[in-house]
Amino acid sequence: MSEDAVPDNAREEVVSAVRLALSRHGYANLTTKKVAAASQKSEAFFFYHYDTKDDLVVAFLDWAIERTTDRLDGLGSADPVVRLYAAVGVLLGDPSDEVFRGINVAMMELLSHAPYNDRFRDRLIAFERSVLETLADIIRDGREAGAFRDVDPEATAAFVLMTTDGTAGAVMALGMTDVAAGVRDRLAAYLGSTVLAPDVDPPAAGLSAPG
Amino acid sequence: MSEDAVPDNAREEVVSAVRLALSRHGYANLTTKKVAAASQKSEAFFFYHYDTKDDLVVAFLDWAIERTTDRLDGLGSADPVVRLYAAVGVLLGDPSDEVFRGINVAMMELLSHAPYNDRFRDRLIAFERSVLETLADIIRDGREAGAFRDVDPEATAAFVLMTTDGTAGAVMALGMTDVAAGVRDRLAAYLGSTVLAPDVDPPAAGLSAPG
Repeated sequence: MSEDAVPDNAREEVVSAVRLALSRHGYANLTTKKVAAASQKSEAFFFYHYDTKDDLVVAFLDWAIERTTDRLDGLGSADPVVRLYAAVGVLLGDPSDEVFRGINVAMMELLSHAPYNDRFRDRLIAFERSVLETLADIIRDGREAGAFRDVDPEATAAFVLMTTDGTAGAVMALGMTDVAAGVRDRLAAYLGSTVLAPDVDPPAAGLSAPG
Repeated sequence: MSEDAVPDNAREEVVSAVRLALSRHGYANLTTKKVAAASQKSEAFFFYHYDTKDDLVVAFLDWAIERTTDRLDGLGSADPVVRLYAAVGVLLGDPSDEVFRGINVAMMELLSHAPYNDRFRDRLIAFERSVLETLADIIRDGREAGAFRDVDPEATAAFVLMTTDGTAGAVMALGMTDVAAGVRDRLAAYLGSTVLAPDVDPPAAGLSAPG
């Protein structure tokens, strides 16, 4: 069945089961049986809507990417200072939130397996590009508004995104919470001293993601 | 057979085959048959020395960890400025080096799968801790020598390591070379403006890894 023909409620059921199964077993150990075990549905339900295990995983990946993209698109403030800190907060996430952790570790496993799977690769390149563009746009807006220094938008976006991407490993997959605290602290200091203009204060919310 | 009883030449053969097979197929697709196909030996050779596929993968992981640890331990300069830049150069690596890329992407896949595999997790936590300690030691030495500012050694080490860890995804797994250039540029700028003391110049070699 083509992806577009899957009804929304079936797709939601599938995404939820894949998310849960990935957080329990990881991608390398995933089977359709384990996906079915993470839902109230039979394995036949999953095969009725999707042909292969990787079709199920791609449905999850599309959902997970859209989830982050929507959060970044909906930051809701016109102030580039507020938007920059909130965007970085979204990307860092809350490592004590089990759901967020599971999604992020799963995306990291799919990212590391992307060289061997064109569908993962195409989607993840487009995702990383769109996040980089969002960050670079915020930086350009902040420069124009005089709220930021004249930093290179693309290089600064790349630097910040690699730092938050990196936390999916040591912080989320390995649970090294002291690393999370150190990175958050140094990243806030970096934004304050290197990106914000000298007379501009960081937002009161710091690097918290918007609720 | 216990790991210690494997003769060195057999272990080298195994590590080389696993490394090659991982770079061709990724961990999620790995089978003992694919490992054997990446060597001149039969599948029976691998099962004679190791009981399971994950025993083979753990032999590779131990080797890959030792390889990076040895490079960080052998930086060879007493000057903390030179050592800091060289250590970051080792961690960033050369993304155009296919062998380095393959090893790093494989380690990222094992790291993202670590929540589901105690042996991967134990080794990778110890590895990340040892790299953090190496970076923090260099920072402490640099502070004592007056060559660095009074930055927090642990938090700064965590920040730098998450940035270089992050490049295993977008840069190495997805091949986004413009991201690599931006990160390298911004990371060098960060070390220069935030870690080095105001009157200290970065080393001429910049962020190159020692040869």
